[in-house]
Amino acid sequence: MENFQYYSPTKFVFGKNTENEVGKLIKQFNAKKVLIHYGGGSIIRSGLLSRVENALQKEKIDYLLLGGVQPNPRSGLVYDGIKLVKKEKIDFILAIGGGSAIDSAKAIAAGALYEGDFWDFFDRKARIRSALPIGVVLTIPAAGSEGSTATVITHENGMLKRGTGSDLLRPIFSIINPELTFTLPTYQTGAGISDMMAHIFERYLTPTKNVDLTDRLCEATLKSIIDAARVISVDPFNYEARATICWAGTIAHNGSLGVGREEDWATHGLEHELSALYDVTHGAGLAVLFPAYMEYTIDTDIMRYRQLAIRVFDVEDIPSNPKTVALEGIKRLKAFFKEIGMPLSFDEIGASEADIEILLDKLAINRGFPLGSFKKLTREDARNIFLLACKK
Amino acid sequence: MENFQYYSPTKFVFGKNTENEVGKLIKQFNAKKVLIHYGGGSIIRSGLLSRVENALQKEKIDYLLLGGVQPNPRSGLVYDGIKLVKKEKIDFILAIGGGSAIDSAKAIAAGALYEGDFWDFFDRKARIRSALPIGVVLTIPAAGSEGSTATVITHENGMLKRGTGSDLLRPIFSIINPELTFTLPTYQTGAGISDMMAHIFERYLTPTKNVDLTDRLCEATLKSIIDAARVISVDPFNYEARATICWAGTIAHNGSLGVGREEDWATHGLEHELSALYDVTHGAGLAVLFPAYMEYTIDTDIMRYRQLAIRVFDVEDIPSNPKTVALEGIKRLKAFFKEIGMPLSFDEIGASEADIEILLDKLAINRGFPLGSFKKLTREDARNIFLLACKK
Repeated sequence: MENFQYYSPTKFVFGKNTENEVGKLIKQFNAKKVLIHYGGGSIIRSGLLSRVENALQKEKIDYLLLGGVQPNPRSGLVYDGIKLVKKEKIDFILAIGGGSAIDSAKAIAAGALYEGDFWDFFDRKARIRSALPIGVVLTIPAAGSEGSTATVITHENGMLKRGTGSDLLRPIFSIINPELTFTLPTYQTGAGISDMMAHIFERYLTPTKNVDLTDRLCEATLKSIIDAARVISVDPFNYEARATICWAGTIAHNGSLGVGREEDWATHGLEHELSALYDVTHGAGLAVLFPAYMEYTIDTDIMRYRQLAIRVFDVEDIPSNPKTVALEGIKRLKAFFKEIGMPLSFDEIGASEADIEILLDKLAINRGFPLGSFKKLTREDARNIFLLACKK
Repeated sequence: MENFQYYSPTKFVFGKNTENEVGKLIKQFNAKKVLIHYGGGSIIRSGLLSRVENALQKEKIDYLLLGGVQPNPRSGLVYDGIKLVKKEKIDFILAIGGGSAIDSAKAIAAGALYEGDFWDFFDRKARIRSALPIGVVLTIPAAGSEGSTATVITHENGMLKRGTGSDLLRPIFSIINPELTFTLPTYQTGAGISDMMAHIFERYLTPTKNVDLTDRLCEATLKSIIDAARVISVDPFNYEARATICWAGTIAHNGSLGVGREEDWATHGLEHELSALYDVTHGAGLAVLFPAYMEYTIDTDIMRYRQLAIRVFDVEDIPSNPKTVALEGIKRLKAFFKEIGMPLSFDEIGASEADIEILLDKLAINRGFPLGSFKKLTREDARNIFLLACKK
């Protein structure tokens, strides 16, 4: 186990009707003027935005609205948000939505207290030294941004998709009402599930030895996600299964499953280029890439893949042939992704083998090689993984 | 799953040599004058106290020492600490030790900012509305107080052992260096392990339905504890196993394993009376009582006990006879407690069947019946559990 610091100060308020507490929660942090930041029409149609506005009005909290966040959130709206916050002397950002709205809110929160271009944080030219407080009302369990330090933004100049992070970006509070996820389309539910599983895999696939406790916590969470996903696929209004997915999505990325382990994040690096080039849903891109990554790196640690197969995918052990066991685990992961409506290959997401060199060039600029820690991927390794992902 | 709030703002600093960072950590919180609060001679003999003092001196942080905390910490020293803090204008409490030192520090931290008698918090006459910030250097993994809201103090007037809690009592930071636990005596290591397992059982044994994710997280942690305990019993200087026990002890009680579940805490109630009357080590008392509690409540939820037996104690399932499977799990828990040097019956901890009515009378005063939530224990139930615990 490696030395670590673990710090997760977010107050999670979880359960039915909890969005109605948003006014009181913001009040606790003495906010004077709030920017409510969100995406498209669904939170308006569902009445959620009105309920949040009512909760703020009840506490006499002043606020402004800034909607329009897209999936794979863009720099343009972040710049708009920063201008608005400075002009209107906003002192609290409330994100309503999934990872895109929260990530955009985080970028605004840090950018608003910075004299230079907020993109400096993503360009590694500056470190985040202060940020406005952020609150969250979660509607899509996937990115885990409601409990994480991270934000990922795509700059429209060059469509560069990059991330940054800071403890200062952890939300002050996150409200998670599983009922708000009942009406998520099947595809979005599946992409969210794939995303949270990927967050666990990025931690599970580690070069660190002796990490039994966090291994088991990762496996426990993966197993619950799979079971709950199967319930949702036949019964989307099942509260308990939705609640499991919601909380699993949060702990998958709040750091608790990665303590003491070197994490990997190579596959996220590969996927960000897919999302940037094709505007693919992040979780769907991960469903395409992760099995390919696993097949390609299986010899890096066969016994780890074997353990995953046995403990999470209930593969029967064959002590004389761990590789067969390990491969069967990956096969079952693929079958599971298919079951929840996820794509499994490049062509299913509109990606093309012919673009692989473009993806690799952008990867070289955005991340550089070698990539990851479980297996340090060269450009050739990355190419081979993309090629594997072209196959069904 | 029940609605819940989860808030764990403690910064955990975990690993080798981390105690040397204590000065810098306190400095971050702008402390002017620190009370270092600890127990007996072991932290002096090991040189730990000197290292901590050096780290504070290096940052030019003023401090005073208050040692002498006993196991099952007493009110007398808390009163002394509160007086000292007020007189010396201390603004930060640093506990070095295990649950006793931390719990005593928490009581001082809350009592120092309260006009009345600190015992009011334990008597349920007042709620904690403010507390000095607390830091921790952990030396005994057991109570989980380094990450919890709770404190348990024994009032010398009547030897009343009572607990209270508040988010304000969560330590600002907790330093956990597993190397500091290498030299713990076997009995203390075992009692710590038993204590943290009990913290998980109090959450695992719940009347709440549909708690699969936290069930699995509990089981994962229990399994890792058992495996690591067995390594330590043959190799007490094994860093990885000690690290597993340290972190397991923290997450067993920081609330993360109990989210969305109604918790029980009846067995802790029973044990506090044993500790108060016989000054038994808390974890040892729990090793005596928990198997008895489980045997007595087995029919409350046989399938839950069966699941525990299969998933944690590797008992083979007999679908036609879940009770046999469940009982075998409890038997293996007892065998494990014995293996790690824990007592299993009243006479092994100097407790007497003849005192059971005294224990029940005090329980009626301190907690009242019915007790717990998994099975609501009447006085008669509690008596029956104590009687079962008299047997080997």
